Amino acid sequence: MAQVLEPVAESTGLPGTPDFDSYPIQHWPVAARAAEGGVDVEWDDGSRSRYHPMVLRENSPDPETIHPVTREQARMLTEFPADLAAIEASIDPAGALAVRWSDGTASRYHPGWLYTYRPGEATRDEDMPERVIWGGDLDLSAVRVDGSNILEDEDQLARWCEALHVHGFAILENLGTDRSVIEQVPALLGPLRDNNFGRIFDVVTKPDADSNAYTSMGLPLHVDLATREYMPGLQFLHCLQNESTGGESLLADSFFIVEKLRREAPELYEALSTTPMTSANKAVNTDYRWTVPMIHLDPATGEPLEVRWNPWLRAPLTADFETADKVYKGLRRLFQMGDSPDNTVTVRLKPGEMLGFDNRRVLHGRTAFDPSTGGRALRGCYVEREELWSRLRIVARHKRERLVSN
Amino acid sequence: MAQVLEPVAESTGLPGTPDFDSYPIQHWPVAARAAEGGVDVEWDDGSRSRYHPMVLRENSPDPETIHPVTREQARMLTEFPADLAAIEASIDPAGALAVRWSDGTASRYHPGWLYTYRPGEATRDEDMPERVIWGGDLDLSAVRVDGSNILEDEDQLARWCEALHVHGFAILENLGTDRSVIEQVPALLGPLRDNNFGRIFDVVTKPDADSNAYTSMGLPLHVDLATREYMPGLQFLHCLQNESTGGESLLADSFFIVEKLRREAPELYEALSTTPMTSANKAVNTDYRWTVPMIHLDPATGEPLEVRWNPWLRAPLTADFETADKVYKGLRRLFQMGDSPDNTVTVRLKPGEMLGFDNRRVLHGRTAFDPSTGGRALRGCYVEREELWSRLRIVARHKRERLVSN
Repeated sequence: MAQVLEPVAESTGLPGTPDFDSYPIQHWPVAARAAEGGVDVEWDDGSRSRYHPMVLRENSPDPETIHPVTREQARMLTEFPADLAAIEASIDPAGALAVRWSDGTASRYHPGWLYTYRPGEATRDEDMPERVIWGGDLDLSAVRVDGSNILEDEDQLARWCEALHVHGFAILENLGTDRSVIEQVPALLGPLRDNNFGRIFDVVTKPDADSNAYTSMGLPLHVDLATREYMPGLQFLHCLQNESTGGESLLADSFFIVEKLRREAPELYEALSTTPMTSANKAVNTDYRWTVPMIHLDPATGEPLEVRWNPWLRAPLTADFETADKVYKGLRRLFQMGDSPDNTVTVRLKPGEMLGFDNRRVLHGRTAFDPSTGGRALRGCYVEREELWSRLRIVARHKRERLVSN
Repeated sequence: MAQVLEPVAESTGLPGTPDFDSYPIQHWPVAARAAEGGVDVEWDDGSRSRYHPMVLRENSPDPETIHPVTREQARMLTEFPADLAAIEASIDPAGALAVRWSDGTASRYHPGWLYTYRPGEATRDEDMPERVIWGGDLDLSAVRVDGSNILEDEDQLARWCEALHVHGFAILENLGTDRSVIEQVPALLGPLRDNNFGRIFDVVTKPDADSNAYTSMGLPLHVDLATREYMPGLQFLHCLQNESTGGESLLADSFFIVEKLRREAPELYEALSTTPMTSANKAVNTDYRWTVPMIHLDPATGEPLEVRWNPWLRAPLTADFETADKVYKGLRRLFQMGDSPDNTVTVRLKPGEMLGFDNRRVLHGRTAFDPSTGGRALRGCYVEREELWSRLRIVARHKRERLVSN
């Protein structure tokens, strides 16, 4: 199964890379020299990169440094001398960077790999399609995907994964109404995330409802389990029956809404992305609480990673008066925007359809329904987002491999 | 099952609170007045608090505002007027704050609740024992807990939860070696977290190991699944057999080690808590990656929330030369400290014992073992940290209820 590291790709004379990715060559290095212990490389577009010695040394694609089967680092950082330095660096006839190290190792680097990881670049994630942030005018055909053969057909799987990532939600059609669908289809991405409502939950009206979800009430936009340190990533709801009057699903892209707030009132956005707020579950037998700013910014990019849109599980805010004022103004504005069709889409799920959404990004709710007019039954589960992203990368890798082998 | 909100506790004349917590009275309010739309309260120690109107209004413990059964907010923030203000505020004869609001509502607030949530305070988490950050001189008796009757005995459960939280790890003893222990005992906290290695994993040597864990190699200190957006919170390892020479478990408190780094080299600590680093799983059929600073600081407190101590799954660092230099110096120093008995403890697990640790705080590893000298078999699983914390709060609540009823 596992591919063995090939130190040299025969046809090109270029060395292998320290992982399973492919690195198409965009630019060739034209000159190199040892500098400050590291290596200066000049590229064919005239740009220059200064590599830190440890970045190159610990990723040297030789079998002593990188395990040839697992491609994991086989040597601990502390095994390399602290004063490790490049003694000599050059571009060899095949176009690879060749380095002689002070620890006696000689390494060669693939130019595609070297260019990808040049200093000052964000880490690439080449198989991740660009996200589309959407408002109320979203054309739902962009998120409707045929799932009639999804257990077998990797192209259907790929389209579903892409919609889920790009728009943060997707409606998979033609799944039938077998109760096992909710076990089998989300599991194509990865393991289901168990939780105190059960690994699989049935969204039906219950006489002794322990959550508003299990009533026929309308539910305003929200995220699930905001009271947890780690909110569930993806939620799936498979529709078995939907005959009641009402019971439409509401969806909104919180990243779209908070971006509107950032533009119209940056000081309120700032308050909501820096003020710790506690979400608290108030139940008799569980007591989940978590304190974090509502808008969680990615430290790497400054963009939202998740939004804890939590209308009814907020603990009393203990911020000072002035901060509380900004937080409440910001919350009110967000909740108002969440009530507007400018920012939301409405979907009436049909039996055999499964709605999936990124619970850290896409808000969900529903309109009230009248159980006397007919049954409404959904089955739900959670899966982590990282499973979707891993699947997207693997599907893209398989696609490349098919292209190569055809 | 659910308790119904009691608007007034008969014996004291004080109003109920909007949740299930208890609020012992530490100070009494002595005066109150409407101010800036909110309420100024003077306490019996002379201190003053100015409450924002929305904090008080949306937590008014009346059944229109707080659902009497679920104690969740029954009214959306947007239902209150944006210019809501206190018209009149006073301390009533029972010692409660009484407020008349511009929307016509009259509310009364319990003094214990009011004092707990005064502005400028950190949100309290009264049942969470203080953490102990430890080094190599930790006395292991502090983390050894009898588990002989843990499925039945809530006091054993409480002691185990406390050790797990306070020290970030615990050794539960006298569990026997039934293979189902790893299903039943961690499930006392909450549902097991499934993952690509399985809901339950057997740590035994395998001929076709897809992870170093399944070899007899020594494993340096690390955290599990650093490549995920959300790393597993708690890990449990139940020992069935441990007869080999070697195979001791190594543990270290990463919060202790990074604090040492912060003191001795603040600029390296700063680099590791701000520079995005990518952890990348390199496998044939999964491709997990996550980019985040190694030391994740809690935005609410500035203290570490988790440390992604990842010796062998780091993607090439693309920081600029100067930053890369600090990151590598910091990493080297951390890994050196992780190799020192000043910072680690060694445990030889016996059959029937279960090691549990906070995978976001406590690093684990093992010494190499010689499979020819005897068998070594552990069974493992993950549970989220939030389940531990919820359980700790509920166990404390039960203890209070027992005190009251005795």
